[in-house]
Amino acid sequence: MNSDEFRRYGYQAVDWIAHYLENIREYPVVPKVRPGDLIDALPVSAPEHGEPMESVLNDFEKLIVPEITHWNHPRFLAYFAISGSVPGILGEMLAAALNVNGMLWKSSPAATELEQVTLGWLRQWLGLPAEFFGIIYDTASISSMHAIAAAREKADPDSHARGLRGDLVLYTSEHAHSSIEKGAITLGIGQENVRKIGVDDRFRMRPDLLREAVMLDRNVGKKPFCVVATIGTTSTSSIDPLNEIADIAEEHGLWLHVDAAYAGAAAVVPELQFILNGIERAHSLVVNPHKWLFTPVDLSVFYTREPDTLRRAFSLVPEYLRTAEDPRAVNFMDYGVQLGRRFRSLKLWFVLRYFGRQGIAKIIREHIAYAQRFAALVREDLDFEIAAPVPFSLVCFRFSGSDDENRALMNAINDSGLAFLSHTVLNGQVVLRLAIGNIETKWDDIEQVWRFMKDWAARQSVHGAHG
Amino acid sequence: MNSDEFRRYGYQAVDWIAHYLENIREYPVVPKVRPGDLIDALPVSAPEHGEPMESVLNDFEKLIVPEITHWNHPRFLAYFAISGSVPGILGEMLAAALNVNGMLWKSSPAATELEQVTLGWLRQWLGLPAEFFGIIYDTASISSMHAIAAAREKADPDSHARGLRGDLVLYTSEHAHSSIEKGAITLGIGQENVRKIGVDDRFRMRPDLLREAVMLDRNVGKKPFCVVATIGTTSTSSIDPLNEIADIAEEHGLWLHVDAAYAGAAAVVPELQFILNGIERAHSLVVNPHKWLFTPVDLSVFYTREPDTLRRAFSLVPEYLRTAEDPRAVNFMDYGVQLGRRFRSLKLWFVLRYFGRQGIAKIIREHIAYAQRFAALVREDLDFEIAAPVPFSLVCFRFSGSDDENRALMNAINDSGLAFLSHTVLNGQVVLRLAIGNIETKWDDIEQVWRFMKDWAARQSVHGAHG
Repeated sequence: MNSDEFRRYGYQAVDWIAHYLENIREYPVVPKVRPGDLIDALPVSAPEHGEPMESVLNDFEKLIVPEITHWNHPRFLAYFAISGSVPGILGEMLAAALNVNGMLWKSSPAATELEQVTLGWLRQWLGLPAEFFGIIYDTASISSMHAIAAAREKADPDSHARGLRGDLVLYTSEHAHSSIEKGAITLGIGQENVRKIGVDDRFRMRPDLLREAVMLDRNVGKKPFCVVATIGTTSTSSIDPLNEIADIAEEHGLWLHVDAAYAGAAAVVPELQFILNGIERAHSLVVNPHKWLFTPVDLSVFYTREPDTLRRAFSLVPEYLRTAEDPRAVNFMDYGVQLGRRFRSLKLWFVLRYFGRQGIAKIIREHIAYAQRFAALVREDLDFEIAAPVPFSLVCFRFSGSDDENRALMNAINDSGLAFLSHTVLNGQVVLRLAIGNIETKWDDIEQVWRFMKDWAARQSVHGAHG
Repeated sequence: MNSDEFRRYGYQAVDWIAHYLENIREYPVVPKVRPGDLIDALPVSAPEHGEPMESVLNDFEKLIVPEITHWNHPRFLAYFAISGSVPGILGEMLAAALNVNGMLWKSSPAATELEQVTLGWLRQWLGLPAEFFGIIYDTASISSMHAIAAAREKADPDSHARGLRGDLVLYTSEHAHSSIEKGAITLGIGQENVRKIGVDDRFRMRPDLLREAVMLDRNVGKKPFCVVATIGTTSTSSIDPLNEIADIAEEHGLWLHVDAAYAGAAAVVPELQFILNGIERAHSLVVNPHKWLFTPVDLSVFYTREPDTLRRAFSLVPEYLRTAEDPRAVNFMDYGVQLGRRFRSLKLWFVLRYFGRQGIAKIIREHIAYAQRFAALVREDLDFEIAAPVPFSLVCFRFSGSDDENRALMNAINDSGLAFLSHTVLNGQVVLRLAIGNIETKWDDIEQVWRFMKDWAARQSVHGAHG
């Protein structure tokens, strides 16, 4: 394709994106499609001869877009609602064109150094001590796996050479994200060696139970080596008590990893920085700009104050054979599993500069304010009830009825195309989650969802009275 | 940013990309910069207030681009020279805008099903049996790690719960990519449990030595569980004897993983499909479209004929608790470490359709022809010698002189900005690698590099005569 053709199709793609984002509320959030619909609509085999770009772009619009769940939609309120942003999209366009692999400093000085610069900026915004070394991975699952791998390397350095012995134990809350357990399984720790510590009535890890579990394991000859605290759990966005957990970690020599994949972004807001109080005592931390910092997927940021341990965990070369290198020429491939590394920092740089700290803080404050306002409506309403505290932009609530009714309400909303909500189970009950995180979400979007739910509830009581 | 502004900056980005790709030969392949230059040029802290997009785009051009190692350059001949392509860039633009997370079928039916469709297409092109299940990961490092994890699950299913016991042993050639060893370390197998099998004079794994090593381990009570064969090794692109290795794998119940990250793409060319002969006996295979299939990084394709084993390796739910699901609604997050999944198949779909099989085969044939032609020049020249067979588009050669002279030649080329070559060590000697893989590389590019080397060699002999 020559450059004139690229200009033509590139403009066309830009126009499509502009129109798409401008009219995003016209799309159903969740598409009405059945599994296999797209597979059935596409040819079984690839074309033998090339096809015109027009056909590909037409099919994109005609076949692909109708099968999209629109994470960009301001009423995408499921999971942790996330959104990219226009500066982030521009950054991705340019990164795709440059197509560098930042495995070594030499293979792309810009990718390496911009990663160092943007993570230094973000470190300051989050109030982290200067000794925290930052690196970008693809996902929080990978970031946390690297944290556990570094913890393993520190606790049992011989396992690097001889393999594991099934005696290391990891602790995390029963509300921790599944990626922690998955990471431990992947690393050979074993699922039975992951202790899920109970929570208090606000869904926060209970330090007394953590201490008890560690002592119990020590007494039977197991080796406690790592504890993972969460700032903003997936189910309820609860905040584990970092300093009390750090006390126990220090007592027993555990690596303390903090999973702040979602809520860490809130620490960018000066009056919310306290959520990371105690972070200077942690060994590592994950925050996902692709969650609540308006950066397109994927971009997960990992900080550790023990970069040498992290590097040793993945090192193929014994330390005494390492050759002297320019200390400013960091080779990020040494700090993880993945050799290939996209130029992810470019989109983050675009986002941080375009919005500035004040711009980002303003949006996050709004999201939290909408969540509080929605929670207040729920609290004041007899048909609904709040199911968990609301420290951030996630509201856990339920229709004052059965689990089946709550599931029916969620399906009604999602099937209508108006919005997309997800659910969780708290204290044995089905609970709905409304998570605000999209850069375009306005109060009116939330109000529409509330009105839908009120109407649905009204129909339920009529139905209940007659049925 | 409103949509008119996005249009403006989007067009500007498209224009920049078009101009960049059109004038790519004007850039030095490797920039003349020192570690820290970019860090020193950028502010120590992020802006408190947002900045105009113009400033960001200007700084991109003024500060970032001069620090780029241009993987797009047709004379980037280091590592495995790769390139994206314009259709791939368009696909990435749209994927960044849609910003979906394909973790579940429901979270993006299009991302899930297009992944199934494109990997079905590619499977046919590669001549793989239909039972091979495909999934996209980010990098070959992660793909191979997943292969080893599945092998572990199959060989020692109890380790999933209780953790590893340090007795599993993995086999691969001494020329295998470092990601195999790194994967084994990450998974808790232990570096000492990775056996590096010796190679023959064409750098292919020796089956006799493999069989010997497996027997030796069995005799001392170790558990051989996995062998990794490479089609296109990193140093020389050598081809391990797949069928002979499969014989041994079957004899001893080993999982056979095939690393064809680079050279697998060549199997798209009908007359080269034989390079994967025996693949139906393998348990898994990795091929990287971001290497030699003109797809921007990152996109690594993993196939396995044991998807259930792969899923169990990462399963948090005991098999007997799994609920019935629509078998057509695949949740790809169940098949790996990573929960978050970009919409990577979109760019692959654009590339496969735009070029078609014939279009891609034509480019790969050209690259191989250029490599053969370059190898012929080297063979006929007294100053240079071929250091390894040339089955694909990589030529290993050396200046007929000392290691220092070979390093000096490489540095002279790389410092000149004309081209970028890398090196390896074969039989104790420094060897230069010239790897062709860029979609825009023409014979004239290779000839320019050859002329540079000849001139350099001529200066050496003059210097030698007088010095």
